[in-house]
Amino acid sequence: MTHRIAIIPGDGIGTEVTPEGQRALEAAARRFDIALDFETFDFASCDYYLEHGRMLPEDWRHTLGEFDALFFGAVGWPEKVPDHVSLWGSLLQFRREFDQYVNLRPCRLLPGIKSPLAGRKPGDIDFYVVRENTEGEYSSVGGTMFEGTDREVVIQETVMTRTGVDRVLKYAFDLAASRPRKKLTSATKSNGIAITMPWWDKRVAAAAEGYPEVSVDQFHIDILTANFVLHPDWFDVVVASNLFGDILSDLGPACTGTIGVAPSANINPEGRFPSLFEPVHGSAPDIAGRGIANPIGQIWSGAMMLEHLGHPEAGRTMLAAIEAVLEEGDERLLTPDLGGQGSTEALGRAIAERI
Amino acid sequence: MTHRIAIIPGDGIGTEVTPEGQRALEAAARRFDIALDFETFDFASCDYYLEHGRMLPEDWRHTLGEFDALFFGAVGWPEKVPDHVSLWGSLLQFRREFDQYVNLRPCRLLPGIKSPLAGRKPGDIDFYVVRENTEGEYSSVGGTMFEGTDREVVIQETVMTRTGVDRVLKYAFDLAASRPRKKLTSATKSNGIAITMPWWDKRVAAAAEGYPEVSVDQFHIDILTANFVLHPDWFDVVVASNLFGDILSDLGPACTGTIGVAPSANINPEGRFPSLFEPVHGSAPDIAGRGIANPIGQIWSGAMMLEHLGHPEAGRTMLAAIEAVLEEGDERLLTPDLGGQGSTEALGRAIAERI
Ligand SMILES: CC(C)[C@H](C(=O)O)[C@@H](O)C(=O)O
Ligand SMILES: CC(C)[C@H](C(=O)O)[C@@H](O)C(=O)O
Repeated sequence: MTHRIAIIPGDGIGTEVTPEGQRALEAAARRFDIALDFETFDFASCDYYLEHGRMLPEDWRHTLGEFDALFFGAVGWPEKVPDHVSLWGSLLQFRREFDQYVNLRPCRLLPGIKSPLAGRKPGDIDFYVVRENTEGEYSSVGGTMFEGTDREVVIQETVMTRTGVDRVLKYAFDLAASRPRKKLTSATKSNGIAITMPWWDKRVAAAAEGYPEVSVDQFHIDILTANFVLHPDWFDVVVASNLFGDILSDLGPACTGTIGVAPSANINPEGRFPSLFEPVHGSAPDIAGRGIANPIGQIWSGAMMLEHLGHPEAGRTMLAAIEAVLEEGDERLLTPDLGGQGSTEALGRAIAERI
Repeated sequence: MTHRIAIIPGDGIGTEVTPEGQRALEAAARRFDIALDFETFDFASCDYYLEHGRMLPEDWRHTLGEFDALFFGAVGWPEKVPDHVSLWGSLLQFRREFDQYVNLRPCRLLPGIKSPLAGRKPGDIDFYVVRENTEGEYSSVGGTMFEGTDREVVIQETVMTRTGVDRVLKYAFDLAASRPRKKLTSATKSNGIAITMPWWDKRVAAAAEGYPEVSVDQFHIDILTANFVLHPDWFDVVVASNLFGDILSDLGPACTGTIGVAPSANINPEGRFPSLFEPVHGSAPDIAGRGIANPIGQIWSGAMMLEHLGHPEAGRTMLAAIEAVLEEGDERLLTPDLGGQGSTEALGRAIAERI
């Protein structure tokens, strides 16, 4: 059985790291005898927008819906197209319309990478952020009144549904129950965001009843970010709303040294739609075109994709290859964000060889 | 002229650190010949709520409105009263009804305190968070529909007004213009929160036109939290919405070692209402009653209060006394969060003596 993979490089360094992701995936496919069939698309990029006046072709749902998984780079180039136009016209639409309601983001301190946190070693930081990925603070409801006057009022609604929250909580509790520490932390802000977040807390409490073996705690998002820095070892599985999950899944990887290595999986657990795999980092216009972007986040996302497609050993091997290259610490291979002088391609090739 | 100060200890360690704040203020008042008149109130606490069924007496606006400043501890004890009830019934009401629209929070690495960030020394981290303090994500508009069913939907509106945003931006730009680096960073999330935040960006751009001498940049909140950890030296004045400011002003102090030392000023710049001064930390039920809470955040808040009341030298002297005690590093005086075995009172007395 062949897995059909759509590659969507997007903008900026997205176009530089996806080829390295593909190279690593091809290496893993050869080694484990997995049939992968790739097709690359140029839409979901700001250049496509400038040419066509939209981020995606009309028939994107149909075109992409046929694939088994989407392998995504990064979108956004604010000098060409405002971020909210490019993102709502592509990535955020994929997440919502393909109902990828779980955004799973590992935060792990890898060997050979220096944490900005004093005294933290590999093994000290190893948790998952499970982010709700389709609703919440990322809503398209709201608007402006008295525009352009001193009375101007701008409103945006956070929308949470029981269906939407309960299903991502179930995923997070299942994940926590499957891990040795069996610990779940909920990100809340029920002292300040006094309508949605107290209700979120109640849904967490209701879900917890089904998992007596999982120990549950919660922190308000402000002190939770502080604790990511002060006590990253406290966390095992952190479940969060769309916005809080977005914040925590950049901050967590920053605590592990660089967001350049962090992967993510946008999952539709029921498999009705393709899931999407992408690095946590953005398109980084400031370093685009220089061939120095770190490809590890993209390659690790590929590992998560193979795991999702039913090849856990291939996924583990890809991650092990990443760790091996990092452990060797050859500065000619490591990209500048890792303290080396290597290129995207050199690091990508080295990892593919190890696989 | 006598300054009338209302002391509102609140809950938990609030009742332990406010007396040390008062002690330090009295020492500064003696030294600089400032007349301070204190009155202490037991409302705005969960015990008051349990007795009276409300957090504040009917006439609180009148009672507190007469004072020149409010010296506040911390509120919240979720086992007694849900957080959103206790906070919306007290602190958040003060901020909104006394129109304390600026929440000013310094993040500074003090001598003698170890940063959790590797290799950071005093001087490396020294910036202000200017937080909008009356509107935005902390709204009281919204509600629940189809309650208790699978169709349950919960909505909360973020409300931003031109008046509300422009005035806090003005404060932040003025502050940036007055500092040597003249740099302002705006916290946004205009790629995801696609109605309010692109508008916030426009208001920042409009305000910037009036301050050609201030250099302005902006980051999305996710990568901004990452940069607090990776590059805290980048920041001078960071301006943020209510929620983003809340997050950044816990994370920033965490990067400086402990949120136990961080102060804040809730300011009504026009002086129509009293301003409120409080530590950034909460009521910490877990360590309450043990006499080990760090009083420095409260004392430093007192220093900001004296500055606000027109006594900048007294304020500076209070901060210098804090720094002197930290620099000495006597473990018998330092509280456990600072790595010592001292008590709240011992540390408070030591600081008051230096003043
Ligand atoms: C207690 C809570 C409501 C408050 C806030 O969110 O504003 C606190 O975290 C703060 O930062 O002052
Ligand atoms: C680009 C942006 C809209 C996106 C998000 O906020 O979800 C990104 O930050 C992420 O975390 O995937």
